Amino acid sequence: MNPDILRERQNATFDIEKLTNILDGGAERTNRRREIREVLVLNDPDFDYGTPTSLPTMILKLREYGISDPVEINWYKSMYWGTGREALGLHYVMFLPTLYTQCDSEQFNKWVPLIIGTYAQTEMGHGTHLRGLETTATFDPATQEFVMHSPTVTSIKWWPGGRNPLFLPLIFLSIPLSASLFDLFLSGFALPTCSGIVIGDIGPKFGFDAVDNGYLKLEHVRIPRENMLMKYAQVKPDGSYVKPLSSKLTYGTMVFIRSLIVGNAGIVLSQCCTIAIRYSAVRHQSEIRAGEAEPQILDYQTQQHKLFPLLATAYAFLFAGQYMIDTYNRISGDINQGDLSEMPELHALSAGLKAFTTWTANTGIEVCRMSCGGHGYSRSSALPDIYVEFTPSCTYEGENTVMMLQTARFLMKSYRQVQAGQQLSGAVSYLNKVHHRVMAPQAVSSQLDLNLNTLVDLYEIRAAMLVELAAQSIQQESARGKCQEDSWNNSTIDLVRASDAHCHYMVLKMFRDKVDQIEDPGVHSVMSTLAHLYAIHGMGNFTGDFLQAGVLTGAQVPSVSKCLKGLLAEVRPSAVLLVDAFDHHDKMLNSVLGRHDGNVYEAMFEWARSSPLNRTEVHESFHKHLKPLQAKL
Amino acid sequence: MNPDILRERQNATFDIEKLTNILDGGAERTNRRREIREVLVLNDPDFDYGTPTSLPTMILKLREYGISDPVEINWYKSMYWGTGREALGLHYVMFLPTLYTQCDSEQFNKWVPLIIGTYAQTEMGHGTHLRGLETTATFDPATQEFVMHSPTVTSIKWWPGGRNPLFLPLIFLSIPLSASLFDLFLSGFALPTCSGIVIGDIGPKFGFDAVDNGYLKLEHVRIPRENMLMKYAQVKPDGSYVKPLSSKLTYGTMVFIRSLIVGNAGIVLSQCCTIAIRYSAVRHQSEIRAGEAEPQILDYQTQQHKLFPLLATAYAFLFAGQYMIDTYNRISGDINQGDLSEMPELHALSAGLKAFTTWTANTGIEVCRMSCGGHGYSRSSALPDIYVEFTPSCTYEGENTVMMLQTARFLMKSYRQVQAGQQLSGAVSYLNKVHHRVMAPQAVSSQLDLNLNTLVDLYEIRAAMLVELAAQSIQQESARGKCQEDSWNNSTIDLVRASDAHCHYMVLKMFRDKVDQIEDPGVHSVMSTLAHLYAIHGMGNFTGDFLQAGVLTGAQVPSVSKCLKGLLAEVRPSAVLLVDAFDHHDKMLNSVLGRHDGNVYEAMFEWARSSPLNRTEVHESFHKHLKPLQAKL
Repeated sequence: MNPDILRERQNATFDIEKLTNILDGGAERTNRRREIREVLVLNDPDFDYGTPTSLPTMILKLREYGISDPVEINWYKSMYWGTGREALGLHYVMFLPTLYTQCDSEQFNKWVPLIIGTYAQTEMGHGTHLRGLETTATFDPATQEFVMHSPTVTSIKWWPGGRNPLFLPLIFLSIPLSASLFDLFLSGFALPTCSGIVIGDIGPKFGFDAVDNGYLKLEHVRIPRENMLMKYAQVKPDGSYVKPLSSKLTYGTMVFIRSLIVGNAGIVLSQCCTIAIRYSAVRHQSEIRAGEAEPQILDYQTQQHKLFPLLATAYAFLFAGQYMIDTYNRISGDINQGDLSEMPELHALSAGLKAFTTWTANTGIEVCRMSCGGHGYSRSSALPDIYVEFTPSCTYEGENTVMMLQTARFLMKSYRQVQAGQQLSGAVSYLNKVHHRVMAPQAVSSQLDLNLNTLVDLYEIRAAMLVELAAQSIQQESARGKCQEDSWNNSTIDLVRASDAHCHYMVLKMFRDKVDQIEDPGVHSVMSTLAHLYAIHGMGNFTGDFLQAGVLTGAQVPSVSKCLKGLLAEVRPSAVLLVDAFDHHDKMLNSVLGRHDGNVYEAMFEWARSSPLNRTEVHESFHKHLKPLQAKL
Repeated sequence: MNPDILRERQNATFDIEKLTNILDGGAERTNRRREIREVLVLNDPDFDYGTPTSLPTMILKLREYGISDPVEINWYKSMYWGTGREALGLHYVMFLPTLYTQCDSEQFNKWVPLIIGTYAQTEMGHGTHLRGLETTATFDPATQEFVMHSPTVTSIKWWPGGRNPLFLPLIFLSIPLSASLFDLFLSGFALPTCSGIVIGDIGPKFGFDAVDNGYLKLEHVRIPRENMLMKYAQVKPDGSYVKPLSSKLTYGTMVFIRSLIVGNAGIVLSQCCTIAIRYSAVRHQSEIRAGEAEPQILDYQTQQHKLFPLLATAYAFLFAGQYMIDTYNRISGDINQGDLSEMPELHALSAGLKAFTTWTANTGIEVCRMSCGGHGYSRSSALPDIYVEFTPSCTYEGENTVMMLQTARFLMKSYRQVQAGQQLSGAVSYLNKVHHRVMAPQAVSSQLDLNLNTLVDLYEIRAAMLVELAAQSIQQESARGKCQEDSWNNSTIDLVRASDAHCHYMVLKMFRDKVDQIEDPGVHSVMSTLAHLYAIHGMGNFTGDFLQAGVLTGAQVPSVSKCLKGLLAEVRPSAVLLVDAFDHHDKMLNSVLGRHDGNVYEAMFEWARSSPLNRTEVHESFHKHLKPLQAKL
């Protein structure tokens, strides 16, 4: 082991394994995760790093080992990170839940064995705004068929991925029924291979070279009535339409997926921090004191300032993901008993947090990558691939700005309820206090209190202020005679900021609450420091809001900066241990820079030498493709 | 032409061509640029979009058409954007100036005809910190040779690019002479192909698939004494070493390249804004008013908020690039007359601006890309390629954080001079006033003045405050008994912020000064609005600093936000015209979304259909590689 990184691991102040258990949700779950890793991945002869494993192979493995819990499926998926990972992409995580939730039992039994499919919803001209989709399914009672049609160029289904539609036996479509027959309710259809289907590849993308994304044009394609997914909405043989009981039911998959994305933002950041922090512990560069040896770059304050807040953020998002999944599972239980009351709040939170966490992680990946200097640009670092894999999550499953505005809609509704004298409960209950304190600057105590619990309160005040300012902007626009919609549009900058502040507050609160539950003193101590760093770093980034809210004075700002520096220094001795606790296996991280043993340079030279271009004087493609052909001829 | 984009071009309030001329530096230069574009690129039968053009071909063209002005070379280079562009990468822009500045006349005549070379400076373990380089050249007087040697894994030259070193007849090395013989002065050597050289490819990177980056290990390689680049430093036959007159001389190339990078950040942002704004003018999505047709997404306030500040930033950086090149040329004239007095300031400014503009553009590219929704992920948009091409500029030619700290060193030195009673001139003269106003909050006038000239003053105050706070941090650390170096390291967060604020002020000032020179009323008016937007948007992002400086109160912050919204609305009608003025030819932009005619969807479908995977049922590689072989066998 590299002596620098060995030294980092000596004199730990906390038990890493206990922290890993907390991340997994208990020691048994850590064991389960490692079992999956050992059996299904590390010791699986079918599993070959660097070679995409086919979707059917993976599904068979999941069945063989009885893995059906979505969180475990997601573990399994994330273990493929660094390999042909997109063979089991998010579309798969989306595809299965859709089958589970939208098929009736007969359909389920019929189609699940044919499970190799894709999910074709987005059109060239329409994405997040589902009501804009142009492809229609019109029921023809005479033949008991739906006629599916893409009338325009913009209505061509675009992006369906995971498998090239060229090779698909079955496609699930999510398209509106024809307006002429029914409400514009989004319904799912199973589309078998048949005539009238024009398909192709949409061409190269940002990364994802191993994934086929296709287009699909429907030219008066006829499919049997039974191919509509009938669990909720139905079309009867006489053509009559049965509406689903509640449109909230269709929220389910969406909320679940967005909750997974929140946790994945944490996983991805934890991977990047593992790579960047381990590398920074073994990389020596420049000088702090003249004449002395080049220091570990992790000793530079600027490097700590780049990486440690992201390390804290990774933990924050992992805990937020846990919270969302737990809440989803609890509320789903209620829903099965017909109680939908908590769904709007969870839906609103999942939308905003999806945007908040993916934007932050997206930027954070690149900060980690660039903190590795030139080597961050090499694919041996794994960081470029992590970025191109992750960045689409800012757009898919609901474009982030649209997501923020969905959360804002809920916040504005809540704000109006408070104004109308109602008492709010749940996540937005802080708005109850809004009239008493916001916009009248706080009495700032001369002695600045920057404890974690105080900071949570200050984030609450900040969120309440920005919610109120957004509401006031809408009111002012209305007062100037603008219609409701224009008032909204002219306030969307403020609305996004309000949602962002709300999410920031929620994530910090979840982090603090989680830390409060930790009993082990060593782990509790280091996690308190991280939560504190998360809060103070955010305060440094949004000083203006806290000054504007009157909870901080200009003269106190340097104290915030001093507190931040103190926390960076406090995290420094535990930094490598804190990334070790994420328990990313070298093989899964697949990064020369992020190696557990820290032997970076030797590994990098080996990696380069094994590059296809270096293997032989003559490029291997000759031996791979041409020589066998020669032998045959 | 798409009717939406046609409508955007009607009723222009200014003359686009006049604005283009300002960007080019005069009508004659616009003509010259278009001439180069027409003759060398658009009408050149050797030039094939999508196929990398070889470096020698391009060099021959440059000679044939007598293009030697570095700015014109850079035009030519940027016209290759969107094609096999890296065949003429930055290494080339670096390589030539190095030859011009470091060779003596004999060497110049000898090597320029063999110009196909690369530049091998960075080592696996050492980049920005040149004194850390490990490869040595030790002079052997007995044979009149240098013995060049890479003693460790970390000393292997890494990244030399542009051409795979495998095929290089000549490599220019920048390595320290052996410490045992000389000062550790960085010297250049011409390295011909000879024994003892171990070379290979460093493996796949973030994009840049078409570029070969190699490694180079030297095992006691012997080269003649004459292969040292001798214009400044020299080694005589008896082994005596002649130091260069001034180490500042070697700044020259560096300053020039960094100045080009500043302008390139503007060019790249202008390309991204062209793509995103044109697309936003023809893309319709969702709804503002219920029941009405889907609006152009450019009408959403959030979309304007993403794109228009970046549009303003593109202009700001283009003007900053002009300023830097002009200043460089002026100072270079002085240097040839032995006057180096202005060099430190230009060097400091070029370092900070290089970091400031590339970080901003790097983030901005991704904002533009994500503002295009899913289609921003398609390489048909050109945006993914622009990102992977551009992002290395945050690291090469001086890692950005290190660059910010170089500028900070100059700022601290200037600050100490003011403290010692000296009067400063030039860019930092605002520090003369620092004691009179900073840290004692400004008397905030109740009537908030947000005019452009006032804003420039406020940015100056902000910069002065942050310079002073950084200096105070260093002083406080020293007072706590820290040595000078540790005091510096423990203040680097503040120092980077100070440099950032200094650069922000400088860029705004250059923008305002440029606008003041514009005589045409229409162009002046729209550019004033953009400069104003640039200033107000930055104020919104750094509200905390302005509040802390006491030039703004919490109650006034909503007025800043209101002003910002007003400016977005003001830019809206001219947005498409303002990107048209960048005069990016469709063929060079090479983006389906950024087409001048706005016919995005048809072009995208065409592009996808022409994807190699869709050309035939059987993949073309069969026809390209296997069929000819079959024919031969």
